[in-house]
Amino acid sequence: MKLTILGCHSATPRVNSNPTSQVLEINNHIFLIDCGEGTQVELRRNKVKFNRIKHIFISHLHGDHYFGLIGLISTFRLLTRETELHIYSPKGLKEVVTLQMKLASSWTNYQLIFHELTSKESELIFEDDKVEVHTIPLDHRIYTNGFLFKEKPGPRKLDLNAALNADIDKVYYNKVKQGFDVVNNQGKLIKNETVTSDPIEPKSYAFCSDTAYNENIIDIIKGATVLYHESTFLEKNKELAVPTKHSTAKQAASIAKQAEVGTLILGHFSTRYDDMNDFKLEAQTIFDQVELAQDGKEFEF
Amino acid sequence: MKLTILGCHSATPRVNSNPTSQVLEINNHIFLIDCGEGTQVELRRNKVKFNRIKHIFISHLHGDHYFGLIGLISTFRLLTRETELHIYSPKGLKEVVTLQMKLASSWTNYQLIFHELTSKESELIFEDDKVEVHTIPLDHRIYTNGFLFKEKPGPRKLDLNAALNADIDKVYYNKVKQGFDVVNNQGKLIKNETVTSDPIEPKSYAFCSDTAYNENIIDIIKGATVLYHESTFLEKNKELAVPTKHSTAKQAASIAKQAEVGTLILGHFSTRYDDMNDFKLEAQTIFDQVELAQDGKEFEF
Repeated sequence: MKLTILGCHSATPRVNSNPTSQVLEINNHIFLIDCGEGTQVELRRNKVKFNRIKHIFISHLHGDHYFGLIGLISTFRLLTRETELHIYSPKGLKEVVTLQMKLASSWTNYQLIFHELTSKESELIFEDDKVEVHTIPLDHRIYTNGFLFKEKPGPRKLDLNAALNADIDKVYYNKVKQGFDVVNNQGKLIKNETVTSDPIEPKSYAFCSDTAYNENIIDIIKGATVLYHESTFLEKNKELAVPTKHSTAKQAASIAKQAEVGTLILGHFSTRYDDMNDFKLEAQTIFDQVELAQDGKEFEF
Repeated sequence: MKLTILGCHSATPRVNSNPTSQVLEINNHIFLIDCGEGTQVELRRNKVKFNRIKHIFISHLHGDHYFGLIGLISTFRLLTRETELHIYSPKGLKEVVTLQMKLASSWTNYQLIFHELTSKESELIFEDDKVEVHTIPLDHRIYTNGFLFKEKPGPRKLDLNAALNADIDKVYYNKVKQGFDVVNNQGKLIKNETVTSDPIEPKSYAFCSDTAYNENIIDIIKGATVLYHESTFLEKNKELAVPTKHSTAKQAASIAKQAEVGTLILGHFSTRYDDMNDFKLEAQTIFDQVELAQDGKEFEF
């Protein structure tokens, strides 16, 4: 998996700081997560091929998370895109986009498929043979979902030498990789674990922005390889986090610790702060493996 | 008057080229003309004070002319703006903005006043004691207006020495500046032209984007100090200009010549061209005084 941060700042775009948007590369998919104003320019700057984006996930309908979407949809049209585009978002987005296309007399030639979300429970919203995407219901001022991107477990690893020694016919190899015991050429039952080992641990990425401190998400994101959790504020401004339903760096770290994730990436920083390292230091009092999001930064895991 | 080009490119924002937006400073007003995606960042880059913008003029509802507006409105709200904001645009914009504010549960604290335009005739849409703004109906794929910003003629210039020599009482000076003949202290009628001279020639700026070649605008913009006229294409691509209802540099120059404007500024360049100087050279075969718009460029006149 490769995660590219296009923007990780809250509220308003500025000359050197973009609102929320990320690109997740996972098993040949290019998933776009949130789409603040300016996202299409950041996609160009980071050389993401527009045509490879087939799925866009929008957490909620505050502007810093989706005001760049209509421009991107429109640019795809101007570039004569034909590939269909799936958009997962809270209910309401389809109405906005449709109204704007109607007023411009500019309808897309490609198919635009809206998956409007309303459930307050975590649900599976995308699945193919290698990847699943689940919503993570968050606690914000309006209806908001995070997203959990999970690789499915791959096949068990076949030990070819062991299989040859056990005299298993090649036609059974797929069955063996699926975990079954099989009968060999001499009619003897071969236990699966004697010729295979565990598959590569599937990776997962949990995106959680925007949200107040919310322990309800812990079970959903448990053991995620990487958690992006918003930390709009530092603890010293906790009084701002409560009414705006945002989190502090310390709260994000507490969620990371309880969910036993591998790495915590902090982001959605308020523009009031100059030194982002303060977020890292604060989080590390609770949880060790902390990274800071930064516009244009890539994380491979 | 001072005109700052924030963006002058057509269709899609790119890393180094912004869609249409301009700031016109005229008699203490800061007028924002069109508002493509990224305008709020360009306003910051060009150090335009947000609070001084009280009037925004939107030519039409194609995205490259207004997709940045909802973000700007939202940022004004976050910055706790209290000053009212007037928006002049084709009908439909209010519905889009209202819907987006509703979905975000984020209403402005300041008053947002929409002036939705539907007339196909030129109309006076703003007036105070020094400035008038008129629409310029354009010929584009959807309902579109250009805007003519005009200074009102100031008072006649009083020649103080001449007025003293003519023995005119001071209480009549304002009347004299208004062009009236007055009676002096000896009861003699003093002809106005003997004690005044013509006021400073009022300046005007005509913004015409987007439009096909359209001679109907000539009477409206006649004698404008500066005309910004779109030239999306060069003559060699004229076959693209016709169906998209855009103009070539040569056509823009022809309008400038017939309208006897002072200076023509070309803009709204298609991203297919690398050397903008070709636009200037083409236009100058028809009209001499040609300037090229460029993001961040300022024109004083």
